[in-house]
Amino acid sequence: MTPELTPSPVPARKSFGSDNHAGAHPAVLRAIGGAGQGDATAYGDDPWTARAAAQLCDTFGAGGVFFVFNGTGANVLGLSLMLRPYQAVICAEGAHLNVDECGAAERILGCKLLLVQAPDGKLTPELVATRLGGRGDEHRAQPRAVAITQVTELGTCYTLEELHRLGEFCRASGLLLYMDGARLANAAAFLGCPLSDLAAEVDVLSFGGTKNGAVGAEALIVMNASLTAEAPYLRKQEMQLASKMRYLAAQFSALLEDQLWLRNAQHSNAMARRLAEGLSGVPGVRLHQPVESNGVFAVLDPALIEPLQREWNFHIWNDHDHVVRWMTAFDTTEDDVDAFVAGIRAAAGALAV
Amino acid sequence: MTPELTPSPVPARKSFGSDNHAGAHPAVLRAIGGAGQGDATAYGDDPWTARAAAQLCDTFGAGGVFFVFNGTGANVLGLSLMLRPYQAVICAEGAHLNVDECGAAERILGCKLLLVQAPDGKLTPELVATRLGGRGDEHRAQPRAVAITQVTELGTCYTLEELHRLGEFCRASGLLLYMDGARLANAAAFLGCPLSDLAAEVDVLSFGGTKNGAVGAEALIVMNASLTAEAPYLRKQEMQLASKMRYLAAQFSALLEDQLWLRNAQHSNAMARRLAEGLSGVPGVRLHQPVESNGVFAVLDPALIEPLQREWNFHIWNDHDHVVRWMTAFDTTEDDVDAFVAGIRAAAGALAV
Amino acid sequence: MTPELTPSPVPARKSFGSDNHAGAHPAVLRAIGGAGQGDATAYGDDPWTARAAAQLCDTFGAGGVFFVFNGTGANVLGLSLMLRPYQAVICAEGAHLNVDECGAAERILGCKLLLVQAPDGKLTPELVATRLGGRGDEHRAQPRAVAITQVTELGTCYTLEELHRLGEFCRASGLLLYMDGARLANAAAFLGCPLSDLAAEVDVLSFGGTKNGAVGAEALIVMNASLTAEAPYLRKQEMQLASKMRYLAAQFSALLEDQLWLRNAQHSNAMARRLAEGLSGVPGVRLHQPVESNGVFAVLDPALIEPLQREWNFHIWNDHDHVVRWMTAFDTTEDDVDAFVAGIRAAAGALAV
Amino acid sequence: MTPELTPSPVPARKSFGSDNHAGAHPAVLRAIGGAGQGDATAYGDDPWTARAAAQLCDTFGAGGVFFVFNGTGANVLGLSLMLRPYQAVICAEGAHLNVDECGAAERILGCKLLLVQAPDGKLTPELVATRLGGRGDEHRAQPRAVAITQVTELGTCYTLEELHRLGEFCRASGLLLYMDGARLANAAAFLGCPLSDLAAEVDVLSFGGTKNGAVGAEALIVMNASLTAEAPYLRKQEMQLASKMRYLAAQFSALLEDQLWLRNAQHSNAMARRLAEGLSGVPGVRLHQPVESNGVFAVLDPALIEPLQREWNFHIWNDHDHVVRWMTAFDTTEDDVDAFVAGIRAAAGALAV
Repeated sequence: MTPELTPSPVPARKSFGSDNHAGAHPAVLRAIGGAGQGDATAYGDDPWTARAAAQLCDTFGAGGVFFVFNGTGANVLGLSLMLRPYQAVICAEGAHLNVDECGAAERILGCKLLLVQAPDGKLTPELVATRLGGRGDEHRAQPRAVAITQVTELGTCYTLEELHRLGEFCRASGLLLYMDGARLANAAAFLGCPLSDLAAEVDVLSFGGTKNGAVGAEALIVMNASLTAEAPYLRKQEMQLASKMRYLAAQFSALLEDQLWLRNAQHSNAMARRLAEGLSGVPGVRLHQPVESNGVFAVLDPALIEPLQREWNFHIWNDHDHVVRWMTAFDTTEDDVDAFVAGIRAAAGALAV
Repeated sequence: MTPELTPSPVPARKSFGSDNHAGAHPAVLRAIGGAGQGDATAYGDDPWTARAAAQLCDTFGAGGVFFVFNGTGANVLGLSLMLRPYQAVICAEGAHLNVDECGAAERILGCKLLLVQAPDGKLTPELVATRLGGRGDEHRAQPRAVAITQVTELGTCYTLEELHRLGEFCRASGLLLYMDGARLANAAAFLGCPLSDLAAEVDVLSFGGTKNGAVGAEALIVMNASLTAEAPYLRKQEMQLASKMRYLAAQFSALLEDQLWLRNAQHSNAMARRLAEGLSGVPGVRLHQPVESNGVFAVLDPALIEPLQREWNFHIWNDHDHVVRWMTAFDTTEDDVDAFVAGIRAAAGALAV
Repeated sequence: MTPELTPSPVPARKSFGSDNHAGAHPAVLRAIGGAGQGDATAYGDDPWTARAAAQLCDTFGAGGVFFVFNGTGANVLGLSLMLRPYQAVICAEGAHLNVDECGAAERILGCKLLLVQAPDGKLTPELVATRLGGRGDEHRAQPRAVAITQVTELGTCYTLEELHRLGEFCRASGLLLYMDGARLANAAAFLGCPLSDLAAEVDVLSFGGTKNGAVGAEALIVMNASLTAEAPYLRKQEMQLASKMRYLAAQFSALLEDQLWLRNAQHSNAMARRLAEGLSGVPGVRLHQPVESNGVFAVLDPALIEPLQREWNFHIWNDHDHVVRWMTAFDTTEDDVDAFVAGIRAAAGALAV
Repeated sequence: MTPELTPSPVPARKSFGSDNHAGAHPAVLRAIGGAGQGDATAYGDDPWTARAAAQLCDTFGAGGVFFVFNGTGANVLGLSLMLRPYQAVICAEGAHLNVDECGAAERILGCKLLLVQAPDGKLTPELVATRLGGRGDEHRAQPRAVAITQVTELGTCYTLEELHRLGEFCRASGLLLYMDGARLANAAAFLGCPLSDLAAEVDVLSFGGTKNGAVGAEALIVMNASLTAEAPYLRKQEMQLASKMRYLAAQFSALLEDQLWLRNAQHSNAMARRLAEGLSGVPGVRLHQPVESNGVFAVLDPALIEPLQREWNFHIWNDHDHVVRWMTAFDTTEDDVDAFVAGIRAAAGALAV
């Protein structure tokens, strides 16, 4: 009872549901194909891995680079380099780490997450300071790491100045700083700065390939060289060690070649801006957050949501406040955006009648 | 300081170090490329995943199929479906689960492994029975699962009769049976039986793609349908959920197409047999285990090992007893084997002089 | 350099810092002495344990009773009977489980705590419902247990009607209900109901001895008989199994004898009421919570706090809002309270000048 | 349905089942009673704890002392000061840590135990060296601690010279040394040396009170001062922090007073020797291990075991080899031993007829 041999999964309309609804960039697919011939030593002792790791070390000014399978793996591995189980991580309540990883941090790290309300998704020294109570008290989990997301889960970006203030605060407060960079490329594109600037203040960060056009690959970038020694063991134990690692590494080399990662991010950011601009002044639609990446967070007239979801793929972000999330990807076209804008305008117009 | 742009990792001589030193089969690479166009819903809600999972469910007669990234992930996820933390897993001392996963089972499951000496890598009801003491005693970790490997870490295969005896024993003893099938294809090729026969006695098993020509993909096959409900959550929490899962699934579809998995396994098994036969009667070389898969385990005259390792890539399996492991792969050629045989014969001849 | 042989720890003034600043009730000490002669089988297979467990089973209508060392142990063991690691516990942000156990729940259970703001320390069905999003979504930790505290950390008590509503909601919602009863005796004294009524709606609860005059002993009461089978193993693994368990059990028998537990709780509750009443109308002092147990939570004029803490032992509960906590114990006397009241009144008077 | 009010648990015949079948020493009970009056700050900030900790620090020359509830708690806490989860503990297969703690080490530490066969219960540098393979290999759990038991589970003692050799080996090999001293007093009594000599080579050890006449108290002695900083947090998180800690501390002060601990151990050791000597030459009874503490391990004619167990309380240690364990305690009398000897002689005589 084998199902049909030729799935035709490409829907008529571009998904705005997630940047991981997109496929892989052709250059990434070519790179995987190109890494496919002949032997290579397993577990990363191969020239593709050496090359991609060296490129990333160089790009970031990092002490070590460790490829892993997915974003949850990167976040958990990165934090596990920093933490003992009685220690805690301060993060935003809406952080992917807290909301979307099925408790992986608690289970694998054994650590408590200390949550902060962050309406724009961004932590500040002042917000972090609210969770520093109880240090030295054996009854309390001890804050040791701060985890931020760049681009945040709400599509906003920390400025370099904001990162600098956080970094200074953490260093002064005996805190290590982790950055979930699943969409770091989009932040670099928005801020117009090199990746090394984004990473300068943090101890460990991830650099996401998957949402940038990879098949599936994330790089854990360890800036604080004192934290690299345990990473190989923890990566293996946390089930993130690829045997044929060249196929992860090759994806990154493809993205790094001629800054494809940046062009992909610039394009998807531009598409998000085009979408936001196209909806300017549409009744029943207003931006919930400034558009600083490839995501548009909008508050919709609730009557709009259901009709639009019948036709288009996107997520309701916050049911209570009628916030929706529209994501663009490296392969979203201007036509895709314009068609979506037209669809929203039509629905809003129908409503207004 | 970017390293050279064109790595040429293909060594002059085929590696006999591991079947994961081989690259990916061209059909797998084509399948990844073919899955690359356009949108698909993330996290497995896509037609490639539906198709590959249905194919595997059908092939195995399974209750559920869950794709994961690597063998350690499959083993840990599979066992986590079965176990509470005070329970224990009975396995061979030489099991990959025990030796080569950096303590992932203990850390992630929280469970104790109860080890059995198994000179040929295989558990028997009698061996398992030696570890059933202390049931009902709160001071003892309670045996609940038996974990076997098919093909074993020593290249041997459980016969269907051996599996049947183990399965019967486990059911009669209140034990669940897990099978690490990283090289299950090679067992099927050796035994000449369908995959469903291999899986008939077990509750959960893995079916390895990576060592069979995939880029990197393993399938967790849940035969005992009562164990499927928690798998999605545990897969996510254990960091094994791929966002663009179609690229894992497509690899399996490629391997299943016209039984490519079986042809790959039959070929690598044949190459191992050719290697073993080519060395028959060579002084200083004798088989340590019967050749029942794509691995040749041989006891070497210790004086042979170092000269051979200078020229060829292979592992010393057991330093104390001078056991080496030679692995073949889907892409090992007759010429590769013959060259290696000639090299070993030459080294042995030089020694004999 | 041995320190002085006769410590004289009894301060001149009664501590209002915690009910575990008090010593043990003489009857408890006598019971420990009385259990001290001769042999008894270890790990609970002794007549003292059998008797106390039977008394508690009878008193609560429980399926099983398991003695443990401390409150954190009771909470973690109780929840571990209910939970798989991908599941989550809904509790008040101020719960002892969340705030004062150094992350034991996260580390030992591997589970996420889903927090609810509860200004009076009490959960309601409506508050619990706010954390039920994401059920069935593999990215989210799955709510499975609700943990409440009776008496709450703010000294308030759930009424039987409130417990009933919560119990009904949990059963209707596929949630198990755990109750931290470190001060359950005080709730029973306040509500004037039998312990079995307090426990009727919950699946598992703790019944605290330590704060009620024991040397150190807590009982885990399993009402839901389907949850008892794993308790012996989990208690041992979680390091809560006493070898000479008779000395834990004997403490409970002493407390149960002629309802000493109830008299102790009635007395300490009365002392808290006396304290609150004595401060009625004092400027700079107002109740933060109604006094429903042996704790008085008051908002103080900030200028009062430091002078009072120089003379008396008590905790600042909430620095930001100037909330202090005053606890009474089974051995707090009317004179102790009156002296404290006089001290506060004097300080307030000095301030008013 | 309350059971009888006056349990009479004292059996007619002294138990040889375990030294924790004994009650508490009267001096310990008096000390608990003496600590019972008035207030003391909770969680160890009290003069009893200060005094007992100072006495123990002084006695051992330790960097820190932490009281815990039981032996499993001491072992797990002690090792948790030393280990990251990818690291492993080398211990004897028969170690309490491995056999009798229901997998607590694996679950709470997340670490693998690397087992060594030790026929007399003792590790040697040579045995430890057999488990040091795979260091630096990310696939292998990394050996970091060695755990020994003094007195061993087989009643034997490490000599000071043996401890010194192990200590030197560990330091030279990058290994930390942990010593489970549940019966350390008996080792000191047998070896006739101060406790500080026993502890000189190790990083962390436990000093057992419970089997020496306490109600229930163990002290974790941290010799390596660099390992103390995390102990308060880990003790709390591992559920081993007593609120009324004075009652644990007072037990130790009682045992330390006039070296009661030593007299108790000398006595129980003497009773074991008396038992062994009394059985010298009895047919069907031969010593399995030399008697170096308060345990007699004997190989019995299997026909003797069942009749003896009908009359006397003791454990079969190893069913396969007919090894039994007879334990004496601080309160075992010469008459108890003589009656047991007579019983065994009678049974053996009946058998010989």
